[in-house]
Amino acid sequence: MIHCTEIKVRGYHLDLYGHVNNARYLEFLEEARWALLEDGDLDWFMQQGYALVISRIDIRYLRPAGMGDMLKIETNLERLLPRSGVIRQRVLKKETGKLVAEAEVTFAVVHPDKPGALPMTDQIAERLAPLLGLAR
Amino acid sequence: MIHCTEIKVRGYHLDLYGHVNNARYLEFLEEARWALLEDGDLDWFMQQGYALVISRIDIRYLRPAGMGDMLKIETNLERLLPRSGVIRQRVLKKETGKLVAEAEVTFAVVHPDKPGALPMTDQIAERLAPLLGLAR
Amino acid sequence: MIHCTEIKVRGYHLDLYGHVNNARYLEFLEEARWALLEDGDLDWFMQQGYALVISRIDIRYLRPAGMGDMLKIETNLERLLPRSGVIRQRVLKKETGKLVAEAEVTFAVVHPDKPGALPMTDQIAERLAPLLGLAR
Amino acid sequence: MIHCTEIKVRGYHLDLYGHVNNARYLEFLEEARWALLEDGDLDWFMQQGYALVISRIDIRYLRPAGMGDMLKIETNLERLLPRSGVIRQRVLKKETGKLVAEAEVTFAVVHPDKPGALPMTDQIAERLAPLLGLAR
Repeated sequence: MIHCTEIKVRGYHLDLYGHVNNARYLEFLEEARWALLEDGDLDWFMQQGYALVISRIDIRYLRPAGMGDMLKIETNLERLLPRSGVIRQRVLKKETGKLVAEAEVTFAVVHPDKPGALPMTDQIAERLAPLLGLAR
Repeated sequence: MIHCTEIKVRGYHLDLYGHVNNARYLEFLEEARWALLEDGDLDWFMQQGYALVISRIDIRYLRPAGMGDMLKIETNLERLLPRSGVIRQRVLKKETGKLVAEAEVTFAVVHPDKPGALPMTDQIAERLAPLLGLAR
Repeated sequence: MIHCTEIKVRGYHLDLYGHVNNARYLEFLEEARWALLEDGDLDWFMQQGYALVISRIDIRYLRPAGMGDMLKIETNLERLLPRSGVIRQRVLKKETGKLVAEAEVTFAVVHPDKPGALPMTDQIAERLAPLLGLAR
Repeated sequence: MIHCTEIKVRGYHLDLYGHVNNARYLEFLEEARWALLEDGDLDWFMQQGYALVISRIDIRYLRPAGMGDMLKIETNLERLLPRSGVIRQRVLKKETGKLVAEAEVTFAVVHPDKPGALPMTDQIAERLAPLLGLAR
């Protein structure tokens, strides 16, 4: 499953050069990940007291985006590792399809009563599996 | 007591027009209020479980601030009302003393176990009183 | 005309207390104003080199909003004064209709080649007039 | 040269879990890079019309930081490549020296009159060289 979120670039997203600031992209990516999780089982994770914590973000900025650009953010769970998962996110200009940024976001599932990153097995794996992007 | 905080304007503070964005000023003001409270009795409030919640911010933007400007934020508790307090904050360019923005920030003290805004009496008043700006 | 914008509260909007932070509301309000202007004549203003600058924001925070809340932001141009305009914005919880925050935002129209705030007459007034909220 | 910037964690830096949000760290890192450049030749770059644009940020989040933590950000230019440079940044808790996050930030130098990333030679290299962290 590849999830799409659209965000329009506004004045307050821009920096000195009239481009979306690099920190702001991380908010755009977070917005898209929440939307992905809502399509999945966000409620179940929250009810169980699980939190998804980000352990690494590797983002490449390829092209600037500016005022009024409509951005399309494609998000999919790329793979599950023993104790982490990797989400791939691509930010494109909707009109031209040109790639603005792409990121690999590594996360772990944690629980306040258990130490460290939990294994990606059992119910956690079951709930996340439908988010895996099969089409790529 | 008038508390001073200094913040240097950076690229990520700016917007489309190369000026500090109006939402960003509220972060500058919050930064300065935390610093004011640290000079006061922030630890005591946190230990007691009290939270200071903002109920109103009235901010006037008088002059733009841009890249590299060193801003000085003057913050003082102006008055205590029966169930609220008013903090006055002024943002100036340090070099010229020119006023960039000024704000009146109204807050209340709340506690998770008690409904609504608490009265500004007893220990709460005692702890806040030293922050009142006598010199104005 | 009353313009509506919807924003869903996400993890990165929240602060220490699990509530939308007061600076973040100003971004929500700006988002809604851009959307209002797009329904109006934003392109014309930008082509002419006009900028709408905010001179004052008076915002009251009435109720906290938290994770997952769908917020509805109502925005309308309330009145035009000789050299400024006042936009009224209300943030409500979509589900319950309860008021979360309300703000009065004062703006002026400026142009790089002309000093100070421009009069709200002629073409500027004509372009803004359709945004006036007649129904209130 | 390793440059140090200190930032105290405030309420508005935190998210749902009471930890500094991952997008906010990128602002902390940007703050520290501006400070590094000021120690170097920022003015010269700006006068020449050069901009330093970020092409990649690879950040690992190792430990959460929370309310009141004093963070120390170490920043140094690690190496110059033919048409890019790599800055290494480490965020530590000042009190304990524990590592909170570390990032590798890749940048290029661009100029509005010249296409693409400029070569890291001649004056550009000369001005950046003193920022190289020799001690590591």
